[in-house]
Amino acid sequence: MTEALIHTTADNTGDTAAAPGAQQPVDLQPSDVEAAVHSIADRSRRAARRMAMANRAWKDRALRAVGAALKANTQAILEANARDVAAGKANGTSAALLDRLTLTGARIDGLVAALENLANLPDPVGNVVRGQTLPNGLRLRQVNVPMGVVAAIYEARPNVTVDIAGLALKSGNAVILRGGSAAEATNSVLVRVLREALESVGLPADAVQTVDQYGRAGANVLMRARGRVDVLIPRGGRDLIQTVVTNSAVPVIETGEGNVHIFIDESADEEMAVEILLNAKTQRPSVCNTVETLLVHSGSTVLPAVAAALDKAGVRLHVDERIRAALPAAVDSVPAMDEDWATEYMDLDLAVGMVDSMEEAISHIRRWTTGHTEAILTNNLSNAERFIAEVDSAAVIVNASTRFTDGGELGLGAEVGISTQKLHARGPMGLTELTTTKWIVQGEGQTRG
Amino acid sequence: MTEALIHTTADNTGDTAAAPGAQQPVDLQPSDVEAAVHSIADRSRRAARRMAMANRAWKDRALRAVGAALKANTQAILEANARDVAAGKANGTSAALLDRLTLTGARIDGLVAALENLANLPDPVGNVVRGQTLPNGLRLRQVNVPMGVVAAIYEARPNVTVDIAGLALKSGNAVILRGGSAAEATNSVLVRVLREALESVGLPADAVQTVDQYGRAGANVLMRARGRVDVLIPRGGRDLIQTVVTNSAVPVIETGEGNVHIFIDESADEEMAVEILLNAKTQRPSVCNTVETLLVHSGSTVLPAVAAALDKAGVRLHVDERIRAALPAAVDSVPAMDEDWATEYMDLDLAVGMVDSMEEAISHIRRWTTGHTEAILTNNLSNAERFIAEVDSAAVIVNASTRFTDGGELGLGAEVGISTQKLHARGPMGLTELTTTKWIVQGEGQTRG
Repeated sequence: MTEALIHTTADNTGDTAAAPGAQQPVDLQPSDVEAAVHSIADRSRRAARRMAMANRAWKDRALRAVGAALKANTQAILEANARDVAAGKANGTSAALLDRLTLTGARIDGLVAALENLANLPDPVGNVVRGQTLPNGLRLRQVNVPMGVVAAIYEARPNVTVDIAGLALKSGNAVILRGGSAAEATNSVLVRVLREALESVGLPADAVQTVDQYGRAGANVLMRARGRVDVLIPRGGRDLIQTVVTNSAVPVIETGEGNVHIFIDESADEEMAVEILLNAKTQRPSVCNTVETLLVHSGSTVLPAVAAALDKAGVRLHVDERIRAALPAAVDSVPAMDEDWATEYMDLDLAVGMVDSMEEAISHIRRWTTGHTEAILTNNLSNAERFIAEVDSAAVIVNASTRFTDGGELGLGAEVGISTQKLHARGPMGLTELTTTKWIVQGEGQTRG
Repeated sequence: MTEALIHTTADNTGDTAAAPGAQQPVDLQPSDVEAAVHSIADRSRRAARRMAMANRAWKDRALRAVGAALKANTQAILEANARDVAAGKANGTSAALLDRLTLTGARIDGLVAALENLANLPDPVGNVVRGQTLPNGLRLRQVNVPMGVVAAIYEARPNVTVDIAGLALKSGNAVILRGGSAAEATNSVLVRVLREALESVGLPADAVQTVDQYGRAGANVLMRARGRVDVLIPRGGRDLIQTVVTNSAVPVIETGEGNVHIFIDESADEEMAVEILLNAKTQRPSVCNTVETLLVHSGSTVLPAVAAALDKAGVRLHVDERIRAALPAAVDSVPAMDEDWATEYMDLDLAVGMVDSMEEAISHIRRWTTGHTEAILTNNLSNAERFIAEVDSAAVIVNASTRFTDGGELGLGAEVGISTQKLHARGPMGLTELTTTKWIVQGEGQTRG
């Protein structure tokens, strides 16, 4: 999950791993790449103006046309994808990455269903955030409008191409895509299908463009194109996100990493603790809202039952010494190292530590959290309130599974990602987070006194 | 207004212009500065946690204590300021910059009054943005919480020190300040007064800190301190803002530049046009919401009256050839160059051009605008609606002065600045824009199916 796609030096222009079937420009100078990507961004700006004018019915027609075109082009998509997968195998790509790279008929059906779901959601554009009539008679309203040009830099997961394009189009934006070079053949077909579908309903094909053909150099230009690109969304592993966040001059929405904690205090119910831990760790271990560290108050009696249930479910427990001493003999465990507290396993592994107070639990969380989601299991009101107040994460949960930090679960309809930064959006982002606002002031000649 | 305070190269550590009275570290290595600024940021984080817990009454007490302390320390503040001003004069600083640098008893009174106004405003922290009970019984709410550590980089205007500190404290944040070195003696006293006032009411002094003693190197470290600093606000001229925006790895809110347009279409009322143009250009020419370019439809008959009124008010008109041909003989003008369309004069100057259509007016605005504020004067409904829909600026105004793009005028109470970016905040920013949100989820054992 940490495939670094972008070099951190601005002068790097080489992405020599041309995917089969992709059109790779030969011997491009940095200034050529810059001019080409700027030209793509300028076309995107013009397309964005037309997208911003499209009403919901028109945009939904486009989303359904994309879905129908994906179905109609399934064969071509799967063939291109097979070439990417074959090249990946030849390059020794890991099984997990190959799985993410692979499309199947069923996965394409899933993308089509997601587009239909998007078409059924309300339009975030035009929503009035607030408004009033001022004492001087000015009518004032703040309205959601599209961002304009949205760029996405992501790894070799072709489903993201369709996913992020659909979200951007529904919210009235144009999108510039930069996917992993290992998926370039697949993405090239998907972008063509998206563009043709847009044109078929009278919307601009340039609302979806890719800079994949310019490799890492193209991604670097995209990251510096402040003013041309309104927002940049990195999607992928830690290295990719850190590279984008550190090097981008374009405003970035940081998504992702979840080193998620659950704290069981001395008043927590045993049965609830067992069920929530099983759900939070084993329901889908590879995602960001799965729990990675469990902290147990030394006064709690639930540890044996919780540990036994997790052990039985195949979870490997990385425990500190006091936890090990308190575990039933039948429960397997390995010693926790310092790095375990920092690790987002995304697998059937869980770090478990013992604390003697709320204070100690909150200090541990502050030291190690990525600010995604933390939960407390408690029946003590003041502990619940203190945890809510003092834990500074995008989502703070009392007596429920951490798996609820999800746009769909929280009623946002679609999810752009889960923001772990504090600016603009925090936690699950829906379509509204792909819009900005505009103040509209209407008068009849008012001047300022 | 374009004093560049920060070098763009990351290895620049020299700010040799030590202000009189400031404690300037001697022979600091870059790694020393980094460690020192990181240590300041870590203290700021701890202080931010305590500020986040302070209720409104406590924070308001702090703001009033700061006001009283500013009054009590007026003599010391003015003495330090006199040293900065004397050094500025010796360095040949321009009269305009010296004016911004200068504090007087009346100006200190103004700062005290602004703090009192802040104390009277509602607390943005704890406001529930949205909430619902989900079908599974989970109670969900999204609540405004403080950002945490806010940093500000600004020019040699000591009033900004008190202004931004007051806004940050009211919204429950800690703040790290980096003012212009030319104001370092004044800022040093102001920061001491702020810190003592915080302590006097039992809040942490470290909620207000400065990195002025580390010069440009300190500012560079601050800009790279992603994770330690939650948001960075540059305040000042174009060069300062561009430097921060381009070099910061910390999320930035870009404020400022306003190349503001008014378009008079062929249906606009003459009297209204005269009054609005006079107000928008002459009421306070040096601020960002003052009009800089007037576009007049060739079918309008109001130009002679508008131009004569502006000329009489001392406005120098920079006009294209068609406007010049249409001006009354008695009205002075100079020819507009291409650069006039791009210029934010911030003075009694106005570029004036003639257009033959809405289309042409909107194209001109798109080419030259900074996205701050644009207005249309019209009595044509479809023109008004088209202008609102197609002009992509933070504020779009119909039949009123552009001077209304202001936090106070739009009912926000206090103004942090006027954002010209699309992420997080757009247009006038109030206290709420110095907060982020937290999702709070409360259940009784819910797990995800």
